[in-house]
Amino acid sequence: MNIEIVKRSDFKSFFDMKTRWKDMDALGHINNATFLTYLESGRIELVKKWDFKKPPFIQASTKIDYLRQLSHPASLQIGQKISRVGHKSFDILTGIFEEGEEKPVAQAVTTLVGFDYESQKTVSVPEVIRQALED
Amino acid sequence: MNIEIVKRSDFKSFFDMKTRWKDMDALGHINNATFLTYLESGRIELVKKWDFKKPPFIQASTKIDYLRQLSHPASLQIGQKISRVGHKSFDILTGIFEEGEEKPVAQAVTTLVGFDYESQKTVSVPEVIRQALED
Amino acid sequence: MNIEIVKRSDFKSFFDMKTRWKDMDALGHINNATFLTYLESGRIELVKKWDFKKPPFIQASTKIDYLRQLSHPASLQIGQKISRVGHKSFDILTGIFEEGEEKPVAQAVTTLVGFDYESQKTVSVPEVIRQALED
Amino acid sequence: MNIEIVKRSDFKSFFDMKTRWKDMDALGHINNATFLTYLESGRIELVKKWDFKKPPFIQASTKIDYLRQLSHPASLQIGQKISRVGHKSFDILTGIFEEGEEKPVAQAVTTLVGFDYESQKTVSVPEVIRQALED
Repeated sequence: MNIEIVKRSDFKSFFDMKTRWKDMDALGHINNATFLTYLESGRIELVKKWDFKKPPFIQASTKIDYLRQLSHPASLQIGQKISRVGHKSFDILTGIFEEGEEKPVAQAVTTLVGFDYESQKTVSVPEVIRQALED
Repeated sequence: MNIEIVKRSDFKSFFDMKTRWKDMDALGHINNATFLTYLESGRIELVKKWDFKKPPFIQASTKIDYLRQLSHPASLQIGQKISRVGHKSFDILTGIFEEGEEKPVAQAVTTLVGFDYESQKTVSVPEVIRQALED
Repeated sequence: MNIEIVKRSDFKSFFDMKTRWKDMDALGHINNATFLTYLESGRIELVKKWDFKKPPFIQASTKIDYLRQLSHPASLQIGQKISRVGHKSFDILTGIFEEGEEKPVAQAVTTLVGFDYESQKTVSVPEVIRQALED
Repeated sequence: MNIEIVKRSDFKSFFDMKTRWKDMDALGHINNATFLTYLESGRIELVKKWDFKKPPFIQASTKIDYLRQLSHPASLQIGQKISRVGHKSFDILTGIFEEGEEKPVAQAVTTLVGFDYESQKTVSVPEVIRQALED
């Protein structure tokens, strides 16, 4: 339960996105599953700069911490960084912030495994991602 | 990365649900965020027997492991149990199985915190949940 | 506004599906867009018997009438029939019923156009669909 | 099938929104149901200026025409206007355009009925909406 809360200064760049009314559930809050769609949207932007034709990895796990309730409408700023690179897997650390707020709404660690969809086999983490760790 | 894979025998009861075509994303697999909707559907069934008017807890975190790719159509069996109860929080361990398969498709631990939505304050874990740990 | 309300007897077979809690929106009702996912699920079942490798048509329009509010949990029975076949397009009439209820929750007409995704061109309606009109 | 295609000049103002990767389905296109979420997002913006505490109407029907396939990423501009006001119901005409394109991706007519959620009864269309027809 004792997690280290991320700060805006942990991230160099942010991806902006807006909530939709339908992101809320019957309790009137952004639904817990929808946060994984926010993470996914951020992740797609993050890897876009590497110009992969198809992503050379597959999602192995996500650990998400919900830090406070959120309602629509909200302008979100999603900070991301490669936080670990192993031989065959790497982690992306994400902080989801609301515009104008210092504390994150949620934070997550996503583990991805190098993967070739053609052969359906695990592969080494691409070098560009290894380099991104040092950025 | 080394997680203990759940078995069907870890669970006493299962909740059945079916995938929908729209659960798949552009890669042709059930989307990662949709698995949290499966977890949520199971969780709602699980707590239904306790007859809370409003759930007396809030989701603090989820750690989900994606163990293999899944496509529509699939008949899922969701095994759940209370795996930890603390003073103010408790965990639900979930295994998502495909009908006829021994190995899970995904597994997750969800941490919930006792919470009163009226006063917006944390509260102790309800006694019925504490008892469910021993079941 | 004066539409002819469908009856259960308008349909020969029904596809069963269950609502999910997340299908509801912040008003506590099944969201209007989610009904199109129900229509889609039914449509996929309907065309499954014709064994197309890829659907040889594309959706041109849907007109949906919401006849009453619906909440989770609900067991739905989706009646469908081919209600019109033209040269290049055809209609599916759908009635969405709640188990045990005579009156539909919603009804819709979906127009599909014969379409070859490879060449991105419209094509004639497949003969099996033309025959289904007479069923 | 012969519908009058809307033009940008049919609308006085536009609501901007962006697609999400998850809006696409297994065919790699924005899913048909997701377009109703776009309509809903626009509608919520449209009625926001009237400062209703709760919307005094309920959705009776939507007719949507899908005019071409759309993929993520796309920047959308949603034009809307009150196109008909009756005693107890009114229509919103919507055109969904992609940035930089003259022709719409989709267009729709949504019929809403004046409704009081407390008493669950139909009511007259609010005067502000009647006036909006003349704008």
